[in-house]
Formats: sequence, structure tokens, C-alpha cells
Amino acid sequence: MDKNLFQDPQAQLQGKGLGRFESSRSAADVAAAGWSILAEDVSLPVAVLALPALQHNLAWMREFAAAYGCLLAPHGKTTMSPALFQAQREAGAWGITLATAPQVEAAFEHGQRRILMANQLVGRRNLDLIADLQARDEDFWFACLVDSASNVDALGRQFAARGQRVRVLLEVGVSGGRTGVRDVAQADAVLEAIARWPQSVALVGVETYEGVLKDEDGIRQLLRQTVAQWRAIAADGGFAETPALLSGAGSAWFDVVAEEFAACAREDGACVVLRPGCYLTHDIGAYQAASVRMQAGNPVAHRMATQLRPALKLWAYVQSRPEPERVIVGLGKRDAAFDAGFPQPDLHHRPGDAAPAAAAVHWQVTAMMDQHAFLQVRAEDDLQVGDLISFDIAHPCLTFDKWRHLLLVDAHQHVIGAVTTHF
Amino acid sequence: MDKNLFQDPQAQLQGKGLGRFESSRSAADVAAAGWSILAEDVSLPVAVLALPALQHNLAWMREFAAAYGCLLAPHGKTTMSPALFQAQREAGAWGITLATAPQVEAAFEHGQRRILMANQLVGRRNLDLIADLQARDEDFWFACLVDSASNVDALGRQFAARGQRVRVLLEVGVSGGRTGVRDVAQADAVLEAIARWPQSVALVGVETYEGVLKDEDGIRQLLRQTVAQWRAIAADGGFAETPALLSGAGSAWFDVVAEEFAACAREDGACVVLRPGCYLTHDIGAYQAASVRMQAGNPVAHRMATQLRPALKLWAYVQSRPEPERVIVGLGKRDAAFDAGFPQPDLHHRPGDAAPAAAAVHWQVTAMMDQHAFLQVRAEDDLQVGDLISFDIAHPCLTFDKWRHLLLVDAHQHVIGAVTTHF
Repeated sequence: MDKNLFQDPQAQLQGKGLGRFESSRSAADVAAAGWSILAEDVSLPVAVLALPALQHNLAWMREFAAAYGCLLAPHGKTTMSPALFQAQREAGAWGITLATAPQVEAAFEHGQRRILMANQLVGRRNLDLIADLQARDEDFWFACLVDSASNVDALGRQFAARGQRVRVLLEVGVSGGRTGVRDVAQADAVLEAIARWPQSVALVGVETYEGVLKDEDGIRQLLRQTVAQWRAIAADGGFAETPALLSGAGSAWFDVVAEEFAACAREDGACVVLRPGCYLTHDIGAYQAASVRMQAGNPVAHRMATQLRPALKLWAYVQSRPEPERVIVGLGKRDAAFDAGFPQPDLHHRPGDAAPAAAAVHWQVTAMMDQHAFLQVRAEDDLQVGDLISFDIAHPCLTFDKWRHLLLVDAHQHVIGAVTTHF
Repeated sequence: MDKNLFQDPQAQLQGKGLGRFESSRSAADVAAAGWSILAEDVSLPVAVLALPALQHNLAWMREFAAAYGCLLAPHGKTTMSPALFQAQREAGAWGITLATAPQVEAAFEHGQRRILMANQLVGRRNLDLIADLQARDEDFWFACLVDSASNVDALGRQFAARGQRVRVLLEVGVSGGRTGVRDVAQADAVLEAIARWPQSVALVGVETYEGVLKDEDGIRQLLRQTVAQWRAIAADGGFAETPALLSGAGSAWFDVVAEEFAACAREDGACVVLRPGCYLTHDIGAYQAASVRMQAGNPVAHRMATQLRPALKLWAYVQSRPEPERVIVGLGKRDAAFDAGFPQPDLHHRPGDAAPAAAAVHWQVTAMMDQHAFLQVRAEDDLQVGDLISFDIAHPCLTFDKWRHLLLVDAHQHVIGAVTTHF
């Protein structure tokens, strides 16, 4: 895969995590500038994406989904980076998933034309925003979720007034969970509402989000209930388009979703769409734990014998060492997710050294403030002000949204490009 | 104060939290568009700033600081909004505080020329970034903190190589805290290092950040130690400029800092600079608690008899009510801080109603995901899909950085402008 796929060459860059530009500040100039992280050409902290790991992860997921006959619509909310969306499409993704109308607009403006909004579409301006996009390109394929009759009626009214039709998937939820119908009565109420708007609301599938549950048994039960709902509607001829969609999967349980949905694709002709988002960058937190589980339990992942790799890292400086065992690093809540575990040191580099060394396993972030991380070390550790440390992260979503651009690096921390984000 | 102060008229807007533009997408067009939040002209979720509350808070802080003879350099990392920096300057602020070199650059590019970087300046590119700004405008006043001899030497070497001088403040810290020298020996080592670079490092003051401590006694002790350090250096003739700076204060303890530092201003001629950042928007969390404490304990705040008001709010839709007591709101970790308490419902508005009503006190956010909040309600509460709810927030910093612009609203939720952020 060409690394140029991962570029936003026209994007203008400013803010943190950049080096010196000679002339304009476009991403194309980044590739030409020849910055090196280790040579301190870039202002730290910086978020970097390791191109080899991105390429590995794209290929991994393509192979995994293909083995189950599933389509991929990676959740774009994770990165909100059109260059990465395009890389995912080039790596075989059927479409892109997003969560809100403005996110859909951002992807549309950057060329995406098949978008599953895995969320309810609510509110006058949000509906108009989607209708405006549909009006701009009749080949734009868009669908959103419904789980209440009142929302269906709002969609029906407003899209009818625009002379348009909106595709919807019935969302199946679980008691104590998030959105989605909880039982047959709620599902039927939604289906009856859809039937009231044959010209403006088209039912094209059934969807669930299993990630609200934590136990595999409960997840499999929800997935089977979702398949049953799909089959019931199919048996009634309730889908407006065929093949009808059957969609699930966040980034932690996509293997189980693939296992449970594959039969419905084979036997009933369902078009199964998986929506993991975090596989592209992976992490060292919940998604690494999920990966280990898959390697052990999923036959396809086991056979592939490689795991997803962490591609998103942060570099930051040792800013102070005011106590022998307390190192203050210039990396904070404004730079990295902290809600699913703190960043974890990966590499340590002293300016002038030939190459970075592995960070000590016992270096642990114990707290974070807006602009600082507290690193617990041992008094004898050779770590001084001005040293560079790279960190792996947990929860890519809440790290991406701290950055308006991320730098693409090769295996030697040479900067080879930049991607912008559009949160 | 003129509301035009709060505008970025030239800024181009895109993304979430906007209405329909007629022609260009500039902030000036926002003011002209006549959007109403309650009329659903804007895509929700949206972050809004209530202009009356901003104006009140600016006047409040101006009066408070003046009563103590203190200067204000509001911490700009909170908002990273140049329009708000300028409003703070117009309301009497002496300068702007920032935390990183790229933040300083962003403020400089938008016209700020007196910037206290309340942080150490570390790393080749970060030092060059500041030196570049100093080279561009010889009237640019910049100072940063130092707490280690090695950092002072790095500053000395690199600024000497540029033929420049950098202003520094000695940071006084506390054992178990963040940055800052812990004892006399560490302070002396830093002062000796400064003395090695008379041409390129100028000591202009002493600084502390008391917000790493939680108890008032410990804070007062740290502040007195900081004053003692200032006096010792002044007695030695160690400051390169007079009046020398004495700086402290985050947003929770600025009253105590003013109390402790005021005598040093009166008796010794120290130039006391307070750095609260969150007063501008306030919140309903830790800063509201601090405000209550000040009203009770600080004579100036008590005499003023008004408190800071929450100015930053979020509007979002009820997206689903799949269970009678469980409402899913379209507002998530991508939109609001969640690390210091969840957002709290303030107003409830049903489209078509004349005006919003107060949200019920028992409506409580119990969890947040990336794009959703879980709201616990009572089965009998009249709350339906498509209703609008406004939320107060805790921790303004981590809410601002989720938004590339925020809309200015009047007391009726009419949109009267927009400010951009530059994280």
C-alpha cells in the first residue's frame, strides 16, 4: 500500500506537534521537510502514527473480515481523519461508519459516499444537514438507526417535506444498555411507524451495538436476538432493499459478532457489516486485551497468528525531576486519553544517542494533569531533563480528538507525512 | 463591554455545533445569521458561551484583583481562544499565561505580546519556537519557569546561540507535588546556573503553583515559602529586572494567593501576577465549590457579594428513552469534560414551547460514552425524544478542547457570535 494514501497534502497545519516550515504550512511540506522526532526537529508533545503498524492493521482486518464474508464499515469517529478513512476504503472497507450528522458531513466533504450513521438522527438541523448532503449527490448512500416511533415520525415528516427518503436500520438494544429497542412491542411500534412513511423512510437492515455488554454470553444472546429480529423482518418482506444489512461490532468483540452473524450471511443472504474503529491504531489497553482474547478463542485470528499492533504513540519530554523517584513529563490530559488507563512508556531517547532504548517496565504514569504526567521511577534510573519518552496509549478515540493533526512516522521516527482530524 | 470584543470575525468555521450558512462560513456570518438554539437552527450537541455571564465574570475578576493590587495574567490554556484572550486584556488583564511553546505561538499569532509561560521550556524545537517569536518582535515580552540547572543551561546555550536572552522565573514546588524546586539546595543550584548565563538568561521573578495541594494550611505555607524565596533573591540583588514578578494562583485558590502575596507587593514592591484561567467561564464543579469557600472566607469576595457564574453550557438532544427511567442524550466524552464530575442538566426545552423550563434536580447523568450520556430520570417525568436539554459542566478546560468553536448566546439562547479555539 502506498504511503501517499495516508496524506492530506492540501491541509494547512498549525498548533502543537510540528517542526519548522520553510514556506507554506501544508501537509505536503511535512513530507518534504525531513523532520526527525529523535533529532528534536518537532515540538513535543506530538502524536505520531507509525505507518508500518497502520499498514499491518489494515491488512489484518481485511483478511479477518474476508474470512467471515463480512463487509467492513470502520467507525470513523475514532480518528475523524479523512485521509485515514480513504486508507481504510483502499484496504477494502465497504463504507465508513460515523456517529453524528456533522461527522457525516465532514466525511462527505472529503469524498466519502457510503456512510452508516450508527446512531439515531435527531433534531431539525441535523436532519436538514443529511438531507442537504443527499440533495447534493443522489449517489450518496446514507443510513441511520431508529429505535422509537417518535423519531421515525420525525424523520418521515421532515424527509417527506424535502421530497426525500432516508434509509434506516432498526436498532436492537438490551435492558440496562444504551439505545435500541428492548422487546418485541417496542420493535413493532418502530416498524409500524416506518410503515406510515413508505415514501420517506426505508428500512434497510437491523443493527446492534454489543459493546454495552461486558460478558461474552450476554453478547452472544444479544447478537442472536438481533439475527432473529432480522429474520423476522425478512420473512415479512419488511426490508425496502436487498440484500438487507445486519450490522454490529465495536472494536472489542468484532470476532464474536462475525461468528454469530456469518450464518445469517451464508444462509439468509444478509449483508453483514462490521464497524470496529480502533483496530486501525489499536492500543495497549482494552483493545490489546480483546486481541489476546481473540487469539485464544477465535479460530480465524488464531490461524492468522499475528495481532493488531499499537500504531498511535505520543512523544514527550522529561521536563523536571524534582525528586529522585518523581519525573514530570510534558504530556497531559490535553494530549492523551486517560479514561481507560494512563499512557505507558515505550521508548526512551537521549538527544545525541544513536537510537532510543526500551523504557523500563517499572516506569509508570501515576497521575495526569492538563499538561503534565507524573512518572514514578527508581532513584537509580538514568533519566534526565530533556530526554524524550514515547508512550503507548489506551483509548485511541479520546487521544485523536486532542490533535488537529498527527504525524506519520516510519520505523526510525522520521516524519513522512501528516493527517488532519475533523472533530 | 462591547460584545464585538468576543468575536473572531474572520475565522472560518466547520464541524459540529453550527447552523446553516447562507454564503461563507465565517464567524461574522454567524452573528448575522440569526440562529436560535431553541428554534433548532443549530446542530446539537453545541457548546455555548453566555455573553452576560462572561461579562459579569470579567468584571468580577477585575474588581477582585484590583482590590489586592494584583495583576492578572489569566491562564489561556483553558480556552485557547484568542478572542477570549483579547476580551480578558480589554477587561484589564496585564498579560496572558500559557503552558506550552505552541500555545504561546498561537497567542502571539493573534496579537498577544505579553505572555507568561507557567511551565518549563524544554526541547530544541520548543526553544527555537520561542526564539523565533522574540526575533519577530523585540517588544514581545515572554518569560518561562525554571526548576533545574540542566534546563537553565539548555536555555542559556540555545538562546546565546541565537544572540537572545530569555526571561525566567524560579519555580518553587512542594514535596510530592509537580514541578518546582523542593529546597534551598535545589533553588541555589538553579540560581547558580542562571548566573552562568548573564547574557542569555534573565531572572525576573519567582513563581509557584499552589493548586497541587488541597489543604489551605499547606497552600499558605507554600505561598509563604515562595515569598521568602522572592525576598531572599531581591535582597541579593538577584533579579535582572524590577519590579520583579511574584506569581501564583490557579482557579481554585487565587483568593488565598492574593492574600498571601499582597504584603510583598505593598512592602517590597513585588509585581504580583495571578493566573486563574477558569474564572472566565466558571463551572458547577470544583470552581463553584471554590467560589462558595471564597464568599465565606475572603473579605473582598464577601464584600463584593456576587459570585462567578457558569458561562459555558452544552445543549443536546434526548435521543432515545428506551426504558422509562433511562434517557439517552446525544452528548458524550467527545463533547464535554467528564473527569471532574459529569455534566448536570440545567434547562429543558420542547421544540415549539415558548421558553425552556428548569431541568428537574433529580435528572442525573450516571455514565458517559464517546457520543452519549445516560440520564437517570423518573418514569413519570415528561421528557421525550427530540427534547433539548442544556447542561452545566465541570472542568471547563477539558470541555473547551472538544470544540473548534463555541457559539456566543444571549440570555434567550439567540446566537450572537462565535469564538474559535486553537489547541
